[in-house]
Amino acid sequence: MSGGAREPGRSVTSKVLAILGAFDAARPQLTLTELAARSGVPLSTAHRLVGELEEWQALSRSPDGRLRVGPRLWELGQLAPNRLQELAHPWLQDLFGSTGENVHLAVRDGLEVLYVDKVYGRRAVPIVSRIGGRLPMHPTGVGKALLAYEPDWFVKSYLARKLERPTPHTITEPGRLARELAVVRTQGYALTYEEMTPGSCSAAAPVLVDGRPVAALGIVLSSRRARELPRLVEPLRAAATGIARAYGG
Amino acid sequence: MSGGAREPGRSVTSKVLAILGAFDAARPQLTLTELAARSGVPLSTAHRLVGELEEWQALSRSPDGRLRVGPRLWELGQLAPNRLQELAHPWLQDLFGSTGENVHLAVRDGLEVLYVDKVYGRRAVPIVSRIGGRLPMHPTGVGKALLAYEPDWFVKSYLARKLERPTPHTITEPGRLARELAVVRTQGYALTYEEMTPGSCSAAAPVLVDGRPVAALGIVLSSRRARELPRLVEPLRAAATGIARAYGG
Repeated sequence: MSGGAREPGRSVTSKVLAILGAFDAARPQLTLTELAARSGVPLSTAHRLVGELEEWQALSRSPDGRLRVGPRLWELGQLAPNRLQELAHPWLQDLFGSTGENVHLAVRDGLEVLYVDKVYGRRAVPIVSRIGGRLPMHPTGVGKALLAYEPDWFVKSYLARKLERPTPHTITEPGRLARELAVVRTQGYALTYEEMTPGSCSAAAPVLVDGRPVAALGIVLSSRRARELPRLVEPLRAAATGIARAYGG
Repeated sequence: MSGGAREPGRSVTSKVLAILGAFDAARPQLTLTELAARSGVPLSTAHRLVGELEEWQALSRSPDGRLRVGPRLWELGQLAPNRLQELAHPWLQDLFGSTGENVHLAVRDGLEVLYVDKVYGRRAVPIVSRIGGRLPMHPTGVGKALLAYEPDWFVKSYLARKLERPTPHTITEPGRLARELAVVRTQGYALTYEEMTPGSCSAAAPVLVDGRPVAALGIVLSSRRARELPRLVEPLRAAATGIARAYGG
């Protein structure tokens, strides 16, 4: 009943949301034609809706005229409550302060990790994680730290798919991954070596509340410095425990 | 032409945007009735649109059933480009690292400051600024640092209004404010003492690109430590200059 006369069955709201949902980290800027195609909204309708969205600053234009998410949506998005990030942030900041290394916090969302916070400085190695960004679980330290504490049925169905292989070091063989997850559970943290990004290695610890992995805290180094990772594990785990206590309490 | 049959002249898109725009920092959670009233959308229409927005996770429910901005809008908002914040962040991080104090970065938007970044730790004094939050200009350090470099006509029209007075220390007398802004321009930084929040004082420096104030960098302390502010001015100004060079280059 909420559809317009021209396209019964699809509401205007769903078209507006399809237009907004057409943007993602891989496609942060789109031409109107791309936007119409990705959202499945007819070009003339997309043109009209984009005009309204631009006027409200939900969308804006890049210098080359392509469309992108606008400042008003950023501001609005900042109102979304995120108790985990708020509680965890000072721990990330302290861990960065005591180690000088990139640290980030991620949660599982579906079959991916979603980065909810990140602390980095001027001298740290550039890393691929981005606040609000997503990555697959098995090649990332935070992903492994989360996956290791998921129930068996979840891990089995995760491993049953064809797994992405972003680098030649990525472990995609299900048996080997399952054994590695068992090691993560035993030792309480995960390590990666160039499995997501050539040149980077990482350590990550789960944030466990009542045994449930609510998040994972990771630290990323240049892989030239991989042998320094072990000494970072204890401060990393201490911070993850601190976050778990703050969040669960 | 884009209005629905029931309410010609107001498009569905504009109603969706009015619903989203009903949320702000002062009202991050609303009942459906409040949402309808604030957005000017009839209750039955609001009910239907909210259902679609909830399904898409543009809105979510708090434990008490009130509506709030949902995780999908947060994630989408993170795609909005913010070159200034990206370039400036490492400088904020370093300034926090070397001083241990709260630092934040703000831009002017209309007659307010909009906070685009903030770095704080576990031991720092809680401060009122929030990333994505807005405050009036005249009681804040960053606001004064920005206002001091705006053209005369802007400052005059800013001072011509009735000015908010969040604390008894807030300077609202136009002549006195104008004199203070002249001092800010002469010395290159602004100081505040409990003008926005009882218990807090601050220093702020403008980020000047070709003489234009593109942002301001601020540092906030407990007002018991106000006499430590002067020694923070030089690292603060150096960071603001670094940001200006990175942004202008």
